[in-house]
Amino acid sequence: MSHAVPDVTGPSARAVELVEALVARGWTLAVAESLTGGLVLAAVVDVPGASRVLRGGVVAYATELKATLLGVDPDLLAARGAVDADVAIAMAAGARERLGADLGLGTTGVAGPDPQDGHAPGTVHVAAVGPLHARVVSLHLTGGRDQVRRDARDAVLALALDMARPAG
Amino acid sequence: MSHAVPDVTGPSARAVELVEALVARGWTLAVAESLTGGLVLAAVVDVPGASRVLRGGVVAYATELKATLLGVDPDLLAARGAVDADVAIAMAAGARERLGADLGLGTTGVAGPDPQDGHAPGTVHVAAVGPLHARVVSLHLTGGRDQVRRDARDAVLALALDMARPAG
Repeated sequence: MSHAVPDVTGPSARAVELVEALVARGWTLAVAESLTGGLVLAAVVDVPGASRVLRGGVVAYATELKATLLGVDPDLLAARGAVDADVAIAMAAGARERLGADLGLGTTGVAGPDPQDGHAPGTVHVAAVGPLHARVVSLHLTGGRDQVRRDARDAVLALALDMARPAG
Repeated sequence: MSHAVPDVTGPSARAVELVEALVARGWTLAVAESLTGGLVLAAVVDVPGASRVLRGGVVAYATELKATLLGVDPDLLAARGAVDADVAIAMAAGARERLGADLGLGTTGVAGPDPQDGHAPGTVHVAAVGPLHARVVSLHLTGGRDQVRRDARDAVLALALDMARPAG
């Protein structure tokens, strides 16, 4: 049960900045992930002291779990499918409410290699919902499946950091 | 939004074997993570074709979310704390039931560097609950925070593989 060399390089600078910004603001965090499948949560947990801010998260990989676990409107899912900007916002809002956090994050999209519901691989929506407002960013990413998922992770961490930082 | 070199080396052999075993058995998977904080889910999602078997998961980092999101008995949590073999089983059973999967996995323990509820860093319980039986493995791991979390991830993937493989 041991390895000579750790298989990762330590916490990402972006995740460290996010945890620091949340601590400074007195905010807690909850995450709802679809295509990123645990990568956002893993990045935050990697930061020493993450337990001061992280409540937890949900990986709703199967579409109907977005409704049952996160409270996303089933009619919205039926009308638009899971790859949708409003679904990303509803996932973030659901994580925020159901896990009792100040800031909720959501990711949905197509990692590839195949299209989903008519959306090309690399189509990604990431959202953040805070106490006062919500934001969503829609991206068309390039690269393979891993690259798309990692860029989506980085995009939602950047959006979260932007939300958590005090207005300048 | 792009990097010259991916920051990981691709899916782990253990996760690939697990997805193959689940497909062969016709089983779906759900995961409840505490100290591993998304690492188990991320390892499974890394495997091409993971969507054939993975329903999703819950990262219940805050202790009371183990009760609200996964249905772990609050009296059990109050009596024993979160770092407990029966809590690991209850988390796995909760993921299995609430996410509607054939096989549920659970991880709980102390990543460190500080003890928790009187348990030393490296104290880890991983559990798997299938249609017919449940198994739990209790470990005393060494190494730093990252190493403990990654060894816990590998231990629950190994336990899951053992459960998913047909009896010889």
